[in-house]
Amino acid sequence: MHLLRPYLPILVWGSRYDRSAFSNDVIAAVIVTIMLIPQSLAYALLAGLPPEAGIYASIAPIVLYAVFGTSRALAVGPVAVVSLLTASAVGQVAESGTAGYAIAALTLAFLSGGFLLLLGVFRLGFLANFLSHPVIAGFITASGILIATSQLKHILGIEAEGHTLPQMLWSLFDHLGEINWITVVIGVSATGFLFWVRKNLKLLLKKVRLSLLMADILTKAGPVVAVVATTVVVWAFDLAGQGVSVVGEVPQSLPPLTMPSLSSDLVSALLVPAILISVIGFVESISVAQTLAAKRRQRIDPNQELIGLGAANLGAAFTGGFPVTGGFSRSVVNFEAGSETPAAGIYTAVGLAIAALFLTPLVYFLPKATLAATIIVAVLSLVDLSILRKTWDYNRDDFLAVLVTIFLTLSMGVEVGVASGVAISILLHLYKTSRPHVAEVGRVPDSEHFRNIHRHEVQTDPALLTLRVDESLYFINARFLQDLIQSRVSEECEIRHVILMFSAVNEVDYSALESLEAINLRLKDFGIGLHLSEVKGPVMDRLKTSHLIRDLNGKVFLSQYDAWRDLSDSSVLGRAGK
Amino acid sequence: MHLLRPYLPILVWGSRYDRSAFSNDVIAAVIVTIMLIPQSLAYALLAGLPPEAGIYASIAPIVLYAVFGTSRALAVGPVAVVSLLTASAVGQVAESGTAGYAIAALTLAFLSGGFLLLLGVFRLGFLANFLSHPVIAGFITASGILIATSQLKHILGIEAEGHTLPQMLWSLFDHLGEINWITVVIGVSATGFLFWVRKNLKLLLKKVRLSLLMADILTKAGPVVAVVATTVVVWAFDLAGQGVSVVGEVPQSLPPLTMPSLSSDLVSALLVPAILISVIGFVESISVAQTLAAKRRQRIDPNQELIGLGAANLGAAFTGGFPVTGGFSRSVVNFEAGSETPAAGIYTAVGLAIAALFLTPLVYFLPKATLAATIIVAVLSLVDLSILRKTWDYNRDDFLAVLVTIFLTLSMGVEVGVASGVAISILLHLYKTSRPHVAEVGRVPDSEHFRNIHRHEVQTDPALLTLRVDESLYFINARFLQDLIQSRVSEECEIRHVILMFSAVNEVDYSALESLEAINLRLKDFGIGLHLSEVKGPVMDRLKTSHLIRDLNGKVFLSQYDAWRDLSDSSVLGRAGK
Repeated sequence: MHLLRPYLPILVWGSRYDRSAFSNDVIAAVIVTIMLIPQSLAYALLAGLPPEAGIYASIAPIVLYAVFGTSRALAVGPVAVVSLLTASAVGQVAESGTAGYAIAALTLAFLSGGFLLLLGVFRLGFLANFLSHPVIAGFITASGILIATSQLKHILGIEAEGHTLPQMLWSLFDHLGEINWITVVIGVSATGFLFWVRKNLKLLLKKVRLSLLMADILTKAGPVVAVVATTVVVWAFDLAGQGVSVVGEVPQSLPPLTMPSLSSDLVSALLVPAILISVIGFVESISVAQTLAAKRRQRIDPNQELIGLGAANLGAAFTGGFPVTGGFSRSVVNFEAGSETPAAGIYTAVGLAIAALFLTPLVYFLPKATLAATIIVAVLSLVDLSILRKTWDYNRDDFLAVLVTIFLTLSMGVEVGVASGVAISILLHLYKTSRPHVAEVGRVPDSEHFRNIHRHEVQTDPALLTLRVDESLYFINARFLQDLIQSRVSEECEIRHVILMFSAVNEVDYSALESLEAINLRLKDFGIGLHLSEVKGPVMDRLKTSHLIRDLNGKVFLSQYDAWRDLSDSSVLGRAGK
Repeated sequence: MHLLRPYLPILVWGSRYDRSAFSNDVIAAVIVTIMLIPQSLAYALLAGLPPEAGIYASIAPIVLYAVFGTSRALAVGPVAVVSLLTASAVGQVAESGTAGYAIAALTLAFLSGGFLLLLGVFRLGFLANFLSHPVIAGFITASGILIATSQLKHILGIEAEGHTLPQMLWSLFDHLGEINWITVVIGVSATGFLFWVRKNLKLLLKKVRLSLLMADILTKAGPVVAVVATTVVVWAFDLAGQGVSVVGEVPQSLPPLTMPSLSSDLVSALLVPAILISVIGFVESISVAQTLAAKRRQRIDPNQELIGLGAANLGAAFTGGFPVTGGFSRSVVNFEAGSETPAAGIYTAVGLAIAALFLTPLVYFLPKATLAATIIVAVLSLVDLSILRKTWDYNRDDFLAVLVTIFLTLSMGVEVGVASGVAISILLHLYKTSRPHVAEVGRVPDSEHFRNIHRHEVQTDPALLTLRVDESLYFINARFLQDLIQSRVSEECEIRHVILMFSAVNEVDYSALESLEAINLRLKDFGIGLHLSEVKGPVMDRLKTSHLIRDLNGKVFLSQYDAWRDLSDSSVLGRAGK
C-alpha cells in the first residue's frame, strides 16, 4: 500500500477522512454544483457540442482527478480556453452538430489524456516550462478576445463562423441583416446584469452585512439567476416561437459509455492539437493548483498532476465528454466554499449526475444568448493587455514574444498563435545566448576583485587580455568567442596572454570545447598564451577529461587574482624593472 | 565606391591586382580546372542529373562568388553532401532523367540562393550556429556512408534506388542477379587505384624528391589518371557494347540560360529542403573558408559569405546547374596551388567553359563506374566515427545528439537526420538549463570567499540559506527555482533569511522576474527575508525597472560577504550574545 501512495493520493487523504471534513466537503459540493450547471452548458456550446456534453465532461473527470490528482481544491471540467481549442481543432475535421464532430471531440480528449499520462509516467512535466509567462499571458488574453467575439453571434441571434478574429468579424458583418432583436434584448440584458453583479453586488452585499464568503458565493451565483430569469421569460412569452434560439431538448441520462475513434486519419489530424491542448491545459491547471496549495501550505507534484489530468481526460473520452482541465473559477469557488479534500469533487459529480437525470428538462427554454452572456463576462476578465506595457518596460524580447503571440492567435488562430509564441521565446533565448555579454575586466586597485573596465576604475596591463564570459559556452555561441578573440588579438599586437575568466560559465559543451581547442591552437601560432581562471567545479571536472587542459598553452588558475599576480609579474613588472 | 566596398569585395582586391598575382592565379586555375572536370561530372551523377550539369554548375557560380564572396581561396561548385541532398529532395518530386527533374534542381538552387541572400541581407548568419559541431560531424559521417552506398550500383553495373541505407541495401540486394562483371572489374580497379594514390603516392613522390606541393598536386590528379585510363580501355575494347554504362553524349555548349519553375506546388515541396541545403552548405563552406583564411591571417565576414553563396546559387539556377557551395577539396587544392585572389576562380571558370565547349566529346566512353569510384574514395575520407567515442568521453548529451543524427540520417534520410540533430541539440540544451545547478554555499573560514558546502569545508549559519544559482534565469527554469526554495523553506524551519547569490546569473527574463516576485511574496508570508548578492551590472540595470527591487523583503548586497556580515550578525551572533 505504501508503494501505491505516491500514485494514488486518494489513499493518503482517504485514510484520515472524518465527519467534519465530510460536512465541509458536502457544503462546498452543493455550491459548486449549482455554479457548474450553467457553466458546463455554456462551455459545451463554445466547443460546438450539444449541451449535455458539458455536464458529462464534468462528472467522470472530476471523480478520476479526485483519485489520482494531488491538489485538494482543484475542480476539473470544461474550461473556456480548452473549449475554444477543442472547437478549433475539431472544426477542422468535422461539421459542428454531426455525430462525427462529437466523436472527434472524444478522440481529442482520448489523445490528450494519453499524452498527459505519458508525460506523467515519464516525468516530463518540465516540458510545460516551454511556455513562458508572457506567452501564456498573451495567449490567454488573445483567447479571451476570440472567445468573446465567437459568442457575439448568439447574442445577436445570427449564424456566423470562423476561427480567427478577421474571419469571425467578417462573418458577423455578413449576417448582420438577420439580427433577431428579441434575442439581442435578452443577450444584452443578461450580459449587463452579469457585469453589474461582478462589479457591484459584492460591495452591496457587504454593506448589508453579509459575510464575505456568503457575498462571494452569491456573486458567483449570478449566472444561475440570469439562467433562471431568462428561461422563465422565454417560456412565459413563448419567445422560442419568435426566433429566440434555445437549448432545446437535453436527454435525461447519466453519462453514456462512448468510444473515441482511432482511425489513423482522425488521429493524425488531431495529434498536434491534442498535444497543444494538453500542454496549455496542464499549464492552466497547475497554476491554479499551486496558487491554492500555497495558501494552505500544501504541495503539488507536477508529474502526478499530469497523471490526474490524463486520467480525467481519458474519463471524458469514454463518457461522452470532451477535453477538460482544472478550471480557475470553479476551483476558487470550491476552495472558498470550504472544501477540505478531493471528496468534494466526488460529491459534485454526484450532484451533477442528479442534475443530468432530473433537471435537464428545465433548461429546454434556456436561451443560448444567456449562456453566451455568461461566457463573455467570464472570459473578458481574462483579457489583460497590461502584459504588453509590463514587458515593454522590463524586456523588449519578452514584449516581442507577447506581441507575436497575441497577433498570431487573433489573426491565424489559437494553434498557430501558441506554437509561434513558444518558438519565438526559444529562438529569442538562443539568439541572446548566441552573442553573450563578454566583459573585459581589470583589477580594482589594492584588492583581489576584478571588474568590467568600462564600468569601474581598474588597473589593466596591455600584455594581458582578461575576458569574463557571462554565459555558458555551447554550440550556439561557440563560434562567437572564437571570432571575438581572433579580432582582439589581430588588432592589439601587445597582447601576450589571454585569460578567460570562467566565473559565470556554467557549462562547456563539446562544440565549445572544440572552439576552445581551436582558439588555443591559433593563439599558440601567434605566440600568445591562453589561460583559464575561476573555472567552476562541475565544468573543470569535465574539461579534465579533454585534450584542452593537457595541450593548453598556459595555465588554469583558481582565482583571477592568482592569474594576474603570476602573469603580470612576468611581463609588466619585469619590464618596469629594466 | 567606398559605400559599395563591404558588399563587393572584388573592389578591394581588384584595385590592387598586379602581374605576379595574375600569374599565380592562372597556375592555380589550370590545376583546379583539371581536377574539377571529373569531379563535376561525378557530382552531377550523384545528384541524378546529366553530366554537363556538373560542369555548368561550376562556371557561373564560381564567377559570382569571386565578385561577392570574402574568401580569397574558396572554390564554389557542386559538392558531395549538397549533391546528395539535391538528389534526395528532387527525387521526391520528379523522376531522375526527366526534364522535370532538371527543372526541380534549378528551382532548388534558386530557392536556396534566395534564402542565403535573405539571411545575408538581414545579417542572420548566426542561424548556422544551430548546427552543433557533433551534429555536423555525425551528419557528414552518415552522409559519407549514404553517398558511398549510393554509388555501389554504378560499381556493380546494376539499377538500384532509395534515399536511406536500408532502402539502398535492399534494392542492391534485389538486383544482385544483374551484375555486369566487366563493370565490376573497372569499378574495383579504379577504386583500388584511387585508394592507393591517396595512401601511398605522396610518400613515394616525396622519396623521388619532388617538392611537397608538386607531390600533393599529382596525388590530387589521381582521378584524372583513372578517368583517362578507363575511358581509353572502354573505347579500345568497345566495352560499352558489352553493357558497361558510360557517360555518353554530352552537348558541346557553354552553360545555357535556364529558368527555374516557380509553380507553387514545386516551391512548397522544395522550400524546406532548400533551407536545409542552404544551412548545411553554408556551414560547410564557412568552415573551409575560415580554416584557409586563418592560415594567411585574413578575415571572413559570415554575412557577406551568405551573399556570395546566395549569388552563386542564383547563378546556378539560371545557367543549367544545381545547388552549389564552397567545397573542401577543391578549395584546398586552389589554396595550395598558390591562388592569391578570387580571380583564380574566374580563370577556372574560363577553363571549364573551354572544356565544356571542346572536351566533352572525349568523355563519351568514360565509364560511370570510374566516376562512382572517385566519389566513393572522396566521401569515405569524410566518414569519421571517432566523434562517437570523443563525445561519449566528454559529454553524454553531445553523444546522444551525434547518435540520433547518424542513426536517423542513415535510416530516415538526410533531411530528417539533420533536422532531428538540430532539434535534439536544442532540446537537450533547454532540458539542461531547465534544472540548473544550484549550490548551497558557506563561508571559507577567515576569508571573503563563499563555496559549495558539499565540496569545501565552510562555515554556515542555520538561519541563513545562501543559494548560488549557476544559470541564467529564464522561462525554462523559472518554476524550478520557485519549487526549490519552497521545498527548502518548508523543510527547514530555522531559516530566517534566503540569500540568492547571482554571480553566475547572466540574465533574468520576465518569466523569471515573476517567479522571483512570487518567491518574495511567499517568503514574506512566512516571515523570511529574501536578499540578493553579487548581481551583475546588466542584470541589476534591468531589475531596477521592476517591482521586485522596490518590494523586496530584504536587501541587495554588492558582495556575498557583505550579506553574510549584515545578516549573520543580526541573527546568530545576536543570539549567541544572549
